[in-house]
Amino acid sequence: MEQTPKYLPSIHTIAVIGGGSWATALIKIFTENGNTRINWWLRNADDVAYIKRYRSNPRYLTSVKLNPELVRPFEDIKAAVKEADAILLAVPAAFITSALSTLSAEDFEGKYVISSIKGMIPTHNTLVTEYIEEHFQVPHKMVAVIGGPCHAEEVAMEKQAYLSLASSSSRYATALAEMMHCRYINTTVIKDLYGVEYCAVMKNIIAIACGIAHGLGYGDNYQAVLVSNSMQEIKRLLKEVYKVKRDLTASAYLGDLLVTTYSQFSRNRTFGNMIGRGYTVKAAQMEMEMVAEGYYAVKSIHQIHTQYEDLNMPITTAVYNILYNKVSPSEEFLWLKEQLQ
Amino acid sequence: MEQTPKYLPSIHTIAVIGGGSWATALIKIFTENGNTRINWWLRNADDVAYIKRYRSNPRYLTSVKLNPELVRPFEDIKAAVKEADAILLAVPAAFITSALSTLSAEDFEGKYVISSIKGMIPTHNTLVTEYIEEHFQVPHKMVAVIGGPCHAEEVAMEKQAYLSLASSSSRYATALAEMMHCRYINTTVIKDLYGVEYCAVMKNIIAIACGIAHGLGYGDNYQAVLVSNSMQEIKRLLKEVYKVKRDLTASAYLGDLLVTTYSQFSRNRTFGNMIGRGYTVKAAQMEMEMVAEGYYAVKSIHQIHTQYEDLNMPITTAVYNILYNKVSPSEEFLWLKEQLQ
Repeated sequence: MEQTPKYLPSIHTIAVIGGGSWATALIKIFTENGNTRINWWLRNADDVAYIKRYRSNPRYLTSVKLNPELVRPFEDIKAAVKEADAILLAVPAAFITSALSTLSAEDFEGKYVISSIKGMIPTHNTLVTEYIEEHFQVPHKMVAVIGGPCHAEEVAMEKQAYLSLASSSSRYATALAEMMHCRYINTTVIKDLYGVEYCAVMKNIIAIACGIAHGLGYGDNYQAVLVSNSMQEIKRLLKEVYKVKRDLTASAYLGDLLVTTYSQFSRNRTFGNMIGRGYTVKAAQMEMEMVAEGYYAVKSIHQIHTQYEDLNMPITTAVYNILYNKVSPSEEFLWLKEQLQ
Repeated sequence: MEQTPKYLPSIHTIAVIGGGSWATALIKIFTENGNTRINWWLRNADDVAYIKRYRSNPRYLTSVKLNPELVRPFEDIKAAVKEADAILLAVPAAFITSALSTLSAEDFEGKYVISSIKGMIPTHNTLVTEYIEEHFQVPHKMVAVIGGPCHAEEVAMEKQAYLSLASSSSRYATALAEMMHCRYINTTVIKDLYGVEYCAVMKNIIAIACGIAHGLGYGDNYQAVLVSNSMQEIKRLLKEVYKVKRDLTASAYLGDLLVTTYSQFSRNRTFGNMIGRGYTVKAAQMEMEMVAEGYYAVKSIHQIHTQYEDLNMPITTAVYNILYNKVSPSEEFLWLKEQLQ
């Protein structure tokens, strides 16, 4: 841990963009300190009305009671953002461009951005933070990512978790870390913004791979090897796309990967499991209702992968071939079996 | 992977010492190739008689049918070892000295040794291979360790697994790797004998920690952080006791750790879970019947830990304090919570 910087940016009000379970969990965490105000934008007007009336999200983490003194739901995204000091992005990456379509660089001016999105912008094949920096002219130092293993469902139950705040500005990351620290959340600060974000994108692909393996009848021994090999695959990718010194066994990388690949709550793993058991992609998506971000992520990462001739990414390749080239999971996994060690 | 060396040592007969589930699984693997002979020593004369008659182990992996052409059970350890080219050790570390008490350096002369034991010699605080090298004067180059994630129960089911053969002699390790490679087992060769062995010892301690956490009600998020931090704890330990260049995310290290800490089959995790739920050490050991090797391992590693002033091992410390100093698990884990990140 670095020394705490002396002067930290003041963030009093955060505009939260998105109404899912992770948005709800983050609002719960941010308001535990009793003084962070939340302007909460949700796409659905009925949800806004419901939250105003009942102080809980009607769709996700319904048991979480929100503090009416601090949490104001908004139908109008411009209004939600207007008086906020920071904008927290918590919609699936595939929907971020449409969610922000009515906002311009002006709306982001002077505001900090926090991304809790684990995915890439499908139309651009860029990280969410890269897109925000470029499209809304937000300075790199005013962007942070929330990383670390943290299933929303466990936050609702107030089970102990650890979050990593990643930003190239340690002042900004530290400010967030202090705001989010509470009885059941420990926080830590990390510099490697893009590395944490790429790892978070990759973990959803790996979780799909683990789900497929499980669906095909592979066991615990195989999954352990798959996850170990995926750490090496992530290391090789990061070496090409964003080479800095990092310890991939830190919670922000390995921990995040583990909770997604081993947890019963992971929708990516569930999605993969259905594919492994013989569902088509469409049938699995219809049955699940939730978006498995890894489905989009694997397409973006695959396209990046093709740009580097010597980059070996067998797990990503296998998941891509199964989801997009309709290769049979059992055949593709026979190939993958020989790539692992 | 290194290039395969041209001339490999010939190993035709292996004396297997121990009658547990891992011994049984390894015999199954070694005999899949149809020509490796096994002289199987078991302590219990009734078990020897049973195996002679029914060709399966009466106590562990009872579904595994052994090839009578290749597997000969022995009551007399000296006789089992006499005509073998290699001696495979597969008893809990705590019992190895008594199991081998009737053997001398002479019995080991010219024979290769394979250790599949994940533990340390409690009375000596040394690795099993260090003890064998010293006590029976076996040359370092004739010693190998079987590492990698591999639950015996899944071998019985012929689920795909990966084993790492570690030896300072890549010829010897390659010979073993070729012998053990079969339809459901992929093998790889690694030089870092002691590193793999220390990691295997540590994983049992970590599995107990994960079990305790589960027993106390901590969730998936916490376990992911605990396992990530344990990788860093293992890295710090290895840097002190056996510093070589290694990639700890390889299957032989991380994979082995994952399968033990996340699998339902892990007896160390089960033991820890009972401790976390309030059982005393004695009550948990009586109820389990199997030996949780981590119980002994944590004592040895704790003693090594105390020799290095600057070595930070909070997880090992917490498990040691709970098991040996009767500190309450919930209190010790409140302390540990603040050590992790």
